[in-house]
Amino acid sequence: MAEDRSRRPPDFAPVAVPPPAERKFCPFCDGNESSTPAEILAVRPNDRPRNAPGWSLRVIPNKFAILRIEGDLNRSGDGIYDLMSGIGAHEIVIESPCHDARFGDYSQNKVESVIRAYRDRVIDLNRDMRFKYIQIFRNYGTSAGAMLEHPHSQVIALPITPRWRERNRGGRREYYEYKERCLFCDILNQETKDQSRVVYENTAFLAFTPFASKFPFETWILPKVHSHDFQFIPDHQISPLAEVLRRTLWAIQMALENPPYNFIIHSAPRLAPSANGRSIEKDYHWHIEIIPRVTRMAGFEWGTGFYVNPTLPERAAEFLRRLILETLEPVNQVE
Amino acid sequence: MAEDRSRRPPDFAPVAVPPPAERKFCPFCDGNESSTPAEILAVRPNDRPRNAPGWSLRVIPNKFAILRIEGDLNRSGDGIYDLMSGIGAHEIVIESPCHDARFGDYSQNKVESVIRAYRDRVIDLNRDMRFKYIQIFRNYGTSAGAMLEHPHSQVIALPITPRWRERNRGGRREYYEYKERCLFCDILNQETKDQSRVVYENTAFLAFTPFASKFPFETWILPKVHSHDFQFIPDHQISPLAEVLRRTLWAIQMALENPPYNFIIHSAPRLAPSANGRSIEKDYHWHIEIIPRVTRMAGFEWGTGFYVNPTLPERAAEFLRRLILETLEPVNQVE
Repeated sequence: MAEDRSRRPPDFAPVAVPPPAERKFCPFCDGNESSTPAEILAVRPNDRPRNAPGWSLRVIPNKFAILRIEGDLNRSGDGIYDLMSGIGAHEIVIESPCHDARFGDYSQNKVESVIRAYRDRVIDLNRDMRFKYIQIFRNYGTSAGAMLEHPHSQVIALPITPRWRERNRGGRREYYEYKERCLFCDILNQETKDQSRVVYENTAFLAFTPFASKFPFETWILPKVHSHDFQFIPDHQISPLAEVLRRTLWAIQMALENPPYNFIIHSAPRLAPSANGRSIEKDYHWHIEIIPRVTRMAGFEWGTGFYVNPTLPERAAEFLRRLILETLEPVNQVE
Repeated sequence: MAEDRSRRPPDFAPVAVPPPAERKFCPFCDGNESSTPAEILAVRPNDRPRNAPGWSLRVIPNKFAILRIEGDLNRSGDGIYDLMSGIGAHEIVIESPCHDARFGDYSQNKVESVIRAYRDRVIDLNRDMRFKYIQIFRNYGTSAGAMLEHPHSQVIALPITPRWRERNRGGRREYYEYKERCLFCDILNQETKDQSRVVYENTAFLAFTPFASKFPFETWILPKVHSHDFQFIPDHQISPLAEVLRRTLWAIQMALENPPYNFIIHSAPRLAPSANGRSIEKDYHWHIEIIPRVTRMAGFEWGTGFYVNPTLPERAAEFLRRLILETLEPVNQVE
């Protein structure tokens, strides 16, 4: 943490995500269904035809996918190097027909239907035994990696498990072995008692800014009851998850004046490797990580893996908490 | 590697680093020496006074340092969390008095003096026994994290060793234990034989685009003779290092039309931890990593640790190699 850093004179100002300027053709807008691949899933009245207007949410294969769905997982070597064919799935969740909608302005109903779409796609993709890990994420704004403005999230199914997730990140596994308790459950416990980093809490979820967080206003959302895999979220938790996610993103949107951000659902890999006869189900705890992109990943971060954060998480949490508590429910909510 | 991805339609174009627009006051420019802390090291004629104009390179403490130089390394706990005081050094290498100079346009002499300044500062900082790791890096352009335009690099001395460097990244340590050879030495050997990813080579260094590189035009520079720590670079290697570094950065500057980039000197930590009676001196091989920032780190990369690269390293290497081979030495070189 380096609070003094926020006082340094920059030659460059941080950039908020601008509203769409000149309206170009957008393949994700209502009426342009024929310019995307056929939909995998959609929310629309039952009597309306598929791949035609009238939907409120669509899931489509990414036309410019990073992985191909057809083929075998060929592995080969080239001297000391390893190759593997790029087999997987890459889907786009078009969250709304409205080009300019922002996630923080979505209605409760809208966010619930987005979360249900995530869950349905993970469950379906997990039926394909070639896939080992599924990553759900949302990029908002160009500097957060979004290539298209239209509001969307992405679901990518991978043929390999990220190594750091399978093994040990942040001492998660050693912690479990030593304490026989989940590290994330202990974090939940300490944050709930401490309250200084809590952003919002409801019956099933806690949103908080992590201790010594890497990024300003970085926020995590954890289910209060231990669960290793997002796909097993029970029906009765979807409404509280939607509530905490939309309130948190709304507050971040207000606090930082519509910043670019990423959010990522961190979940255990499906084929959980067991170590010492123990499964990842016990030491992993799924959660959502929200990273506003107001600082830059630069040479120091890349070289050392350490991050310089000019905003104390306690200050960020207080700011977000007050925004949520003191402000009435926004009126215009995007359905 | 996903070459198709480069054909997708973006709403946003990639951004080259613009030339400085309106000239504001710059504390790093010639004549403004009084607005920086007193210099630690400078290159100027012997008869000229310190902290005054007439220099060609200055090293100063960062006025907005991420770590303080004075104090003890206090460690404490807060429940399950750990705290440590932010003790370290944060220095700026002002490479040139010229505000608009670009590294790729530096003369051979200029780059040699920059490398000597890096080496001198690492050797000096290593005398302070509180420091365990020293990171040298350069951020160029706002989207690569540079806050000021004036050409500069940074040296940061840390009181802790980055965990992934101390231990094992990319299987470096397991590789050594199995083969009893340095992984980087084997990479050098294979790249030299293969030639398809070689960018430039001289007596002492090889520049190449790594196999399945994370980023488009990512380039590594490795010393051909095994050495774990940059600070031990012998005098006779400074000239070839300067040559390969300036040619490579010049070619990247040309190829990508002045892109933002980071370069990082990866080196073994000073207090090399031994494992199984073996030192990091044998399995680590210092090198420079150059990362042009033309793709964005987004939710997928952050979630999985995998990177999608639309440019094959073989194509990037061929492009850079040709630029270097076919173009005459640039005429206007910044001294």
